[in-house]
Amino acid sequence: MKIGFIGLGQMGSAIAANLLAAGHELSVWNRSPEKAQPLVDTGARLAASPADAAQGEVVMTLLADDAALEAVVYGANGILGSPALHVSHSTISIALAERLTADQSDGFVSAPVFGRPAAAQGAKLFVAAAGDGKALDLCEPLFAAIGQRTFRIGDHPPAANLVKLSGNFMIMAAVEAMAEAMTLAEKGGVPPAVLLEVLTGTLFDAPVYHSYGAILLEQKFRPAGFAAPLGLKDMGLADAAATTFKVPMPILGIVRDHLRAVIAQEGDDIDWAATALAVRRAAGLG
Amino acid sequence: MKIGFIGLGQMGSAIAANLLAAGHELSVWNRSPEKAQPLVDTGARLAASPADAAQGEVVMTLLADDAALEAVVYGANGILGSPALHVSHSTISIALAERLTADQSDGFVSAPVFGRPAAAQGAKLFVAAAGDGKALDLCEPLFAAIGQRTFRIGDHPPAANLVKLSGNFMIMAAVEAMAEAMTLAEKGGVPPAVLLEVLTGTLFDAPVYHSYGAILLEQKFRPAGFAAPLGLKDMGLADAAATTFKVPMPILGIVRDHLRAVIAQEGDDIDWAATALAVRRAAGLG
Amino acid sequence: MKIGFIGLGQMGSAIAANLLAAGHELSVWNRSPEKAQPLVDTGARLAASPADAAQGEVVMTLLADDAALEAVVYGANGILGSPALHVSHSTISIALAERLTADQSDGFVSAPVFGRPAAAQGAKLFVAAAGDGKALDLCEPLFAAIGQRTFRIGDHPPAANLVKLSGNFMIMAAVEAMAEAMTLAEKGGVPPAVLLEVLTGTLFDAPVYHSYGAILLEQKFRPAGFAAPLGLKDMGLADAAATTFKVPMPILGIVRDHLRAVIAQEGDDIDWAATALAVRRAAGLG
Amino acid sequence: MKIGFIGLGQMGSAIAANLLAAGHELSVWNRSPEKAQPLVDTGARLAASPADAAQGEVVMTLLADDAALEAVVYGANGILGSPALHVSHSTISIALAERLTADQSDGFVSAPVFGRPAAAQGAKLFVAAAGDGKALDLCEPLFAAIGQRTFRIGDHPPAANLVKLSGNFMIMAAVEAMAEAMTLAEKGGVPPAVLLEVLTGTLFDAPVYHSYGAILLEQKFRPAGFAAPLGLKDMGLADAAATTFKVPMPILGIVRDHLRAVIAQEGDDIDWAATALAVRRAAGLG
Repeated sequence: MKIGFIGLGQMGSAIAANLLAAGHELSVWNRSPEKAQPLVDTGARLAASPADAAQGEVVMTLLADDAALEAVVYGANGILGSPALHVSHSTISIALAERLTADQSDGFVSAPVFGRPAAAQGAKLFVAAAGDGKALDLCEPLFAAIGQRTFRIGDHPPAANLVKLSGNFMIMAAVEAMAEAMTLAEKGGVPPAVLLEVLTGTLFDAPVYHSYGAILLEQKFRPAGFAAPLGLKDMGLADAAATTFKVPMPILGIVRDHLRAVIAQEGDDIDWAATALAVRRAAGLG
Repeated sequence: MKIGFIGLGQMGSAIAANLLAAGHELSVWNRSPEKAQPLVDTGARLAASPADAAQGEVVMTLLADDAALEAVVYGANGILGSPALHVSHSTISIALAERLTADQSDGFVSAPVFGRPAAAQGAKLFVAAAGDGKALDLCEPLFAAIGQRTFRIGDHPPAANLVKLSGNFMIMAAVEAMAEAMTLAEKGGVPPAVLLEVLTGTLFDAPVYHSYGAILLEQKFRPAGFAAPLGLKDMGLADAAATTFKVPMPILGIVRDHLRAVIAQEGDDIDWAATALAVRRAAGLG
Repeated sequence: MKIGFIGLGQMGSAIAANLLAAGHELSVWNRSPEKAQPLVDTGARLAASPADAAQGEVVMTLLADDAALEAVVYGANGILGSPALHVSHSTISIALAERLTADQSDGFVSAPVFGRPAAAQGAKLFVAAAGDGKALDLCEPLFAAIGQRTFRIGDHPPAANLVKLSGNFMIMAAVEAMAEAMTLAEKGGVPPAVLLEVLTGTLFDAPVYHSYGAILLEQKFRPAGFAAPLGLKDMGLADAAATTFKVPMPILGIVRDHLRAVIAQEGDDIDWAATALAVRRAAGLG
Repeated sequence: MKIGFIGLGQMGSAIAANLLAAGHELSVWNRSPEKAQPLVDTGARLAASPADAAQGEVVMTLLADDAALEAVVYGANGILGSPALHVSHSTISIALAERLTADQSDGFVSAPVFGRPAAAQGAKLFVAAAGDGKALDLCEPLFAAIGQRTFRIGDHPPAANLVKLSGNFMIMAAVEAMAEAMTLAEKGGVPPAVLLEVLTGTLFDAPVYHSYGAILLEQKFRPAGFAAPLGLKDMGLADAAATTFKVPMPILGIVRDHLRAVIAQEGDDIDWAATALAVRRAAGLG
């Protein structure tokens, strides 16, 4: 398929490489063009602009935030009005997803992904996709090339963004709960590793507890797999959705407070799971 | 082995039946003796008192709360001073576990269990056991007869109780997080079942999300598998531990508030997972 | 003094009337010009545009939110670049206050006010003003004409906005605390009026407890003195400031959740103090 | 009047001295008898036991906690069954207040007091009294001798205890709200003293904001006027009442967490208002 890919950060580059490897004809664009070089070296075409990358059947975008995606869609030489179907992988606000849906009424798919960079490289992402059924059918082989499973969330694109924000909230909630329980255990004389073994050996045998549990045990928060300020941004988007839809979410309030706390205490370069540090310190642990 | 079992509620009766089936010589005692009848009919001896049930190698207790266990240990004809090793399966306060440890210095094992009545019947419980190593060795075949796996928590018995309270807290935290996310999804136009499928299909593929997720989807809170007042009691014990060890636990505060709320709104006969109802109602859902 | 006034809602009209009564030469502008008529009838000049209202020494603005103030300052025929000193009474975001400070470096005073419409009519507002000292001196007689007291917050205009947001947060926090205590009292058999009498008769003898206490006792939440959606907007601005400055504010999280709750349950036309209803309902009261 | 006074800590000694100064015939008792000496030196009689102190018309008790009061009432030579009307000034649990009411059906007044030691010395306490109307009439001159005002809470003694716990909760809530707002101000560039001046100069002109505001500004948390562990105990009693009456109280959860935090960080000898330190540290301030 003739496709474009815009946004070549760590995640985007890995995804684009998998699309290329799957045999698709790929045009790429990035604000800092040097990031496109490795892909160009392996066969991608360097597009002259976002619009230029959107002349094929599909153009996929994966940008850092609302502002970056808005620039690529609505800015000079943006993709708005281009022939390609826009497939957005970014984690953005529900408000922007609604606007993109309204403004691209002839075709828009929202398809945020779950997974860290290693999963992107291994084509092991999870894709949560929402949009018109035929558009989703068209994307099916593309999603298959980048992920291990695609979930269809319905025909209204912003629904996929809400699922993504909910998922990230659930991760932060699990980290907070583990941090509270492990701190209680430690101060009460139970080695946190023992508690974690019981949890993951019983009702909590899920990747989120295994992976984040290990991070909490080792207190390995640098280098950041997903930096706390990005986590705070995402939780801010979830909070905005909670305001729009009028949903009290007290755990969300807690995790946002702890993200603020750990950034205040440790700076911007720490992993979002370091909310556990805020929990420990509040309990007088180092 | 010659053993005693005290406390024949739904859980205790199921455990005792499995011990009997495993070939142990069993004496049983319950405050309301009629509950002992099915076990007596299948070969157990009806003990005349708690002390009478504690004349063998091991006496196991599974009572509803601190007061009930105190009565059986310290009351008239209590097991204190009896020859049997006391193995306590009850979910009790850390303070009482400490007291029992001090008063039974020649032998005490704390071994609370994880699992609902069906798991008890199927000998599929998880046992978290703490105490002297030789005492734990002695109990090994007994635990094998009632559960699928035993976790050794160390040699200080109250540690096992802290693990149990932490585990129950983790369950309530997961229910609260799911309830918040599913309510956000529902009000934002995403069917909660779709969100749950994504969660359990990705990072949250653990029994706690599968089983409680289904309960939340169906809003099936009656009959109660574990009644909200018992949940509130357990969370109160966790709160007491948090006070003793000086650990701030904001999610614990939230789940205790929501247990109070749902009992206030619905009465005592509702499942502890109905905290999700409190979340829904706060968001204006029925 | 020759002054302009932009934004003639309930508060703005009352303030402008007091400026007129104090003998100032007043030009007024409002998006819906009919609201200017009563002031024109009593001697004000109807300005043709925001810029036209900003040809005197001072132009005061009191708009509903960031967007409305931005339109008046940066929009067509906006006041940016006009000769008058801009004095902003609006409750706006810290981010916009920073932008206005940067863009109006030759003169900008931020002077949000505390008080309900009746206080505005009676010239009994409190003014929290920040900006250049000479500019504040110039405003002194204007503030004296509309309020009972002016607090100088320093020379950086956004500081006054932060004080305003903090003050509104403190009101919501006091309402929440009273609601929790009065609900506890009621369910525990103590008439809330008795509790309130003890509180206001001892350590809590302050207007916030007298006025909001009476509202809570009577549960008189309609018509709204200050509507819950406006309160939620203001608390959102406080939350944005907390994110910018990295300050965990758990009570803020609670009051935002309860504002969402009561709007979900009751609609938009209810007073912000109706967060107390959310507290009551969570406790099973009607 | 012939009265007894039991419990001669800092508060009790000051109250007893005022009763003596008012001309009453006073018997005193304290577990550590040396604390009674100053009162004996000025005319009080040293009672041989609690019961011995309860042979007059009224016996007043002011003990540290439930256990101490239970010992004095129900212990050896306790006041239970003595002819004197028991007037309890202690801050105790609702559960114990109910028990005392049931067991002293021929006369019991619960009359907890508000005020610090200096207020006790100056006979400036506030008394919240509940019990039979004639019994309250009898106590009127006694309360007048020790306080500036008496509030009648009704005829059910535990109601007065609920008012006391609610009042202490309200103090902690006000401290928490101030701490959050002052921390936001400080990190946002507004001197906390300026914010406090605006607050106490407007809607928050009440003793609780003046006195605790000054403590927070100076961060003067030692020596403790009221030690954090005592505050945590009182908030635990409020929490127990919230559980009994099924009232969600999220601010109570926060202040309990912050009391745990500051005791964990600072030890037992710090003032309860140091919850503000926990707030500051969570925001990365020293």
